[in-house]
Amino acid sequence: MIEYYDISGCYILRPWAMEIWELLKEFFDAEIKKLKLKPYYFPLFVTENVLQKEKDHIEGFAPEVAWVTKSGKSELEAPIAIRPTSETVMYPYFSKWIRSHRDLPLRCNQWCNVVRWEFSNPTPFIRSREFLWQEGHTAFATKEEADKEVLQILELYRRIYEEFLAVPVSKGRKSEMEKFAGGLYTTSVEAFIPNTGRGIQGATSHCLGQNFAKMFDITFENEKGAREMVWQNSWAYTTRSIGVMVMTHGDDKGLVLPPRVAPIQVIVIPVPYKDSDTTAIKGACESTVYTLNESGFRADLDTRENYSPGWKYSHWEMKGVPLRIEIGPRDLANQQVRVVRRDNGAKVDIPVANLVEEVKVLLDEIQANLLKTAKEKRDACIEVIHTWDEFTTALNNKRLILAPWCDEEEVEKDVKARTKGDLGAAKTLCTPFDQPELPEGTLCFASGKPAKKWSFWGRSY
Amino acid sequence: MIEYYDISGCYILRPWAMEIWELLKEFFDAEIKKLKLKPYYFPLFVTENVLQKEKDHIEGFAPEVAWVTKSGKSELEAPIAIRPTSETVMYPYFSKWIRSHRDLPLRCNQWCNVVRWEFSNPTPFIRSREFLWQEGHTAFATKEEADKEVLQILELYRRIYEEFLAVPVSKGRKSEMEKFAGGLYTTSVEAFIPNTGRGIQGATSHCLGQNFAKMFDITFENEKGAREMVWQNSWAYTTRSIGVMVMTHGDDKGLVLPPRVAPIQVIVIPVPYKDSDTTAIKGACESTVYTLNESGFRADLDTRENYSPGWKYSHWEMKGVPLRIEIGPRDLANQQVRVVRRDNGAKVDIPVANLVEEVKVLLDEIQANLLKTAKEKRDACIEVIHTWDEFTTALNNKRLILAPWCDEEEVEKDVKARTKGDLGAAKTLCTPFDQPELPEGTLCFASGKPAKKWSFWGRSY
Repeated sequence: MIEYYDISGCYILRPWAMEIWELLKEFFDAEIKKLKLKPYYFPLFVTENVLQKEKDHIEGFAPEVAWVTKSGKSELEAPIAIRPTSETVMYPYFSKWIRSHRDLPLRCNQWCNVVRWEFSNPTPFIRSREFLWQEGHTAFATKEEADKEVLQILELYRRIYEEFLAVPVSKGRKSEMEKFAGGLYTTSVEAFIPNTGRGIQGATSHCLGQNFAKMFDITFENEKGAREMVWQNSWAYTTRSIGVMVMTHGDDKGLVLPPRVAPIQVIVIPVPYKDSDTTAIKGACESTVYTLNESGFRADLDTRENYSPGWKYSHWEMKGVPLRIEIGPRDLANQQVRVVRRDNGAKVDIPVANLVEEVKVLLDEIQANLLKTAKEKRDACIEVIHTWDEFTTALNNKRLILAPWCDEEEVEKDVKARTKGDLGAAKTLCTPFDQPELPEGTLCFASGKPAKKWSFWGRSY
Repeated sequence: MIEYYDISGCYILRPWAMEIWELLKEFFDAEIKKLKLKPYYFPLFVTENVLQKEKDHIEGFAPEVAWVTKSGKSELEAPIAIRPTSETVMYPYFSKWIRSHRDLPLRCNQWCNVVRWEFSNPTPFIRSREFLWQEGHTAFATKEEADKEVLQILELYRRIYEEFLAVPVSKGRKSEMEKFAGGLYTTSVEAFIPNTGRGIQGATSHCLGQNFAKMFDITFENEKGAREMVWQNSWAYTTRSIGVMVMTHGDDKGLVLPPRVAPIQVIVIPVPYKDSDTTAIKGACESTVYTLNESGFRADLDTRENYSPGWKYSHWEMKGVPLRIEIGPRDLANQQVRVVRRDNGAKVDIPVANLVEEVKVLLDEIQANLLKTAKEKRDACIEVIHTWDEFTTALNNKRLILAPWCDEEEVEKDVKARTKGDLGAAKTLCTPFDQPELPEGTLCFASGKPAKKWSFWGRSY
């Protein structure tokens, strides 16, 4: 899927990754166009002056900003930043474009690259210095409209993870410490990787409130002729989503791809024996691929003659193709094909006459099974705790911790300080919307003060 | 379509431009996938060391390269370049990925942004410091395969210009002076803007020969077990294509968009008179838009109540929408709609029953008419000349000059030097594949030596 590049933290996305990215993009772009989002492309560059306008925002991003200072052999008059995100690139123009309530809502989306020159461990997909994403930026007349959109988009992110990538996620709200720099509140979908015991932020949908509107003077004349500030959102998901999927489903044999995002859903492999009619086998393989492609599946044929069938099985298992079809002399004689599932290794013979319908059923089953299995594994990691001792034990056991919390920033800072170590500190992942009952008198696991909510805690990527 | 940005030479692409870009991309991407091109994404950044490997190449691009030297407050150990094009980004990995003839052909394409920090006059779409493009990079075992692909891609570029943007172009080959830095030969599609009398390069398809293969050590083992160097191509078209279209078709009233790329092909405007049944009119408008959209057209409705129909006519004319449909009380009574063409202002009443078929015919006619008109205007500018005097006169008259040429680099340099001036020097645009007869004894217009070919000359963008 990727190739390491000679600049640390940069990776080459190869077709197997890009084709997944294109499938996700096709779904998401169509959905947001239904919501009247319009495509834009704003520049890669932003001046220092504009970048620094929103103080909390720049504090969050400043250490990671890459600066262009030279072109050819000339020094630039002033350094120019490469966008780490585009709030400051876009909002001076929002201020210009929005005059009246009739200009609202303004709903922009762009697909682009951004650069965050991070110094912590770079990891392909998960933490890279350049990544691809979509970023939506919207402005509304009222907070109600903004609030509503935050959740509409969050639901699309949930669908990307659960319906396409088969990765279970929790929708929730970020703590004050973990929210977007400069925003009002942040919602996210959070995944969890059982093997490493770490949470991972899947995508975020922020309500920016009126903070940026104030700094960038984005106001409109309302229906009564008075000037008001707009309410804004921004939201994004990135190529990281592919990495979360890889970590969730991969096994000893390599990748396991959910059918809905697999660039090849069915790989067909001829299995000729000595003296068998190779031409007839090849013909049956070609006709199988043709039939499947005509029915809307992504099927391909591996006819390479310099590799054995066994080598090909391993190769396509490693690449995670959901279904393998083998066709040998016996299959030919019996008018059937042998189908092997990548997710559980199950083998089944299908009559050629039922090919399309049975493949459809199998792919749907694999898609559902991957999500179900991942959810069971994730759920088995959730540990409800009440005390600091239970918390540290659960953390050591790499659990996804659900704990009653007083919701105070100082307490989260304190938990971070007390859990610092080689593996990284614990922090809040999110406060899930789906809240268990919180009996009166429940105390915060960390501060002993009255708890206000259940929050997920753990180490994270 | 665009908004000026506070960094010179950078522009914001607004939805009206991005939607055109998406339509072009949809066509082109599907076509190259038929040719087995695979999607990749290579990093934005390239190290100085790698960028400088191919000497001619870096000489061509060095003055325009933007350099990142800082991240946060730290100086980088070595400056890192932003890609002006991706040959040097990709080819070290081609060297790694290509081992055997079985790895060929390798065919990569990416859609991305590139940066060329030019200092000549920035112009929206035409000359900007950051632009969007696709870049295809391919490697073959033989020159024949590479040559063939160069022309396949050039034909797709011709189709983008002539079939989508309705801009007539000439296919041809660039002179040695004008070819791609580091390549073997360059083909291009060239357009011409009659108003300014300048040629403009529409897109280029380069055969790189084995120059880069040598520098980046891209070799393969052939079927006989011997090592050979690959043959490479690279080819690209950019958001400039939208600018060429704007300059070709625009008139006093604003843009004129060819139907195949118009984000809105038909705008429907209610024309209520005093006392007319506004509800019925609005209903008829909605049903018209619905019917057209259901039939696959891109139609929209302008129901804004704070603008008059006349204001809306001008607005959508300025935006270049190919067809306007007006529906007033008389249309309602007669079960018809009034249709107005943007390209020639012609008005026609269409029975509601024939809406879909007549709109289809009209859009096809507009598409064909725009290309035909542009071709007539372009052809009227072509002047065949034989002498230096005729050349300078034609140049002063802003003509597209077709001249017999000896094909010597020194002579092109000399023509450039002799025509230097405020308007810029003349140069070769291309040697068209479609060559008129060149009678024996024809002399070069500039050097007086025997002419080898007919070439287009002129000032250019």
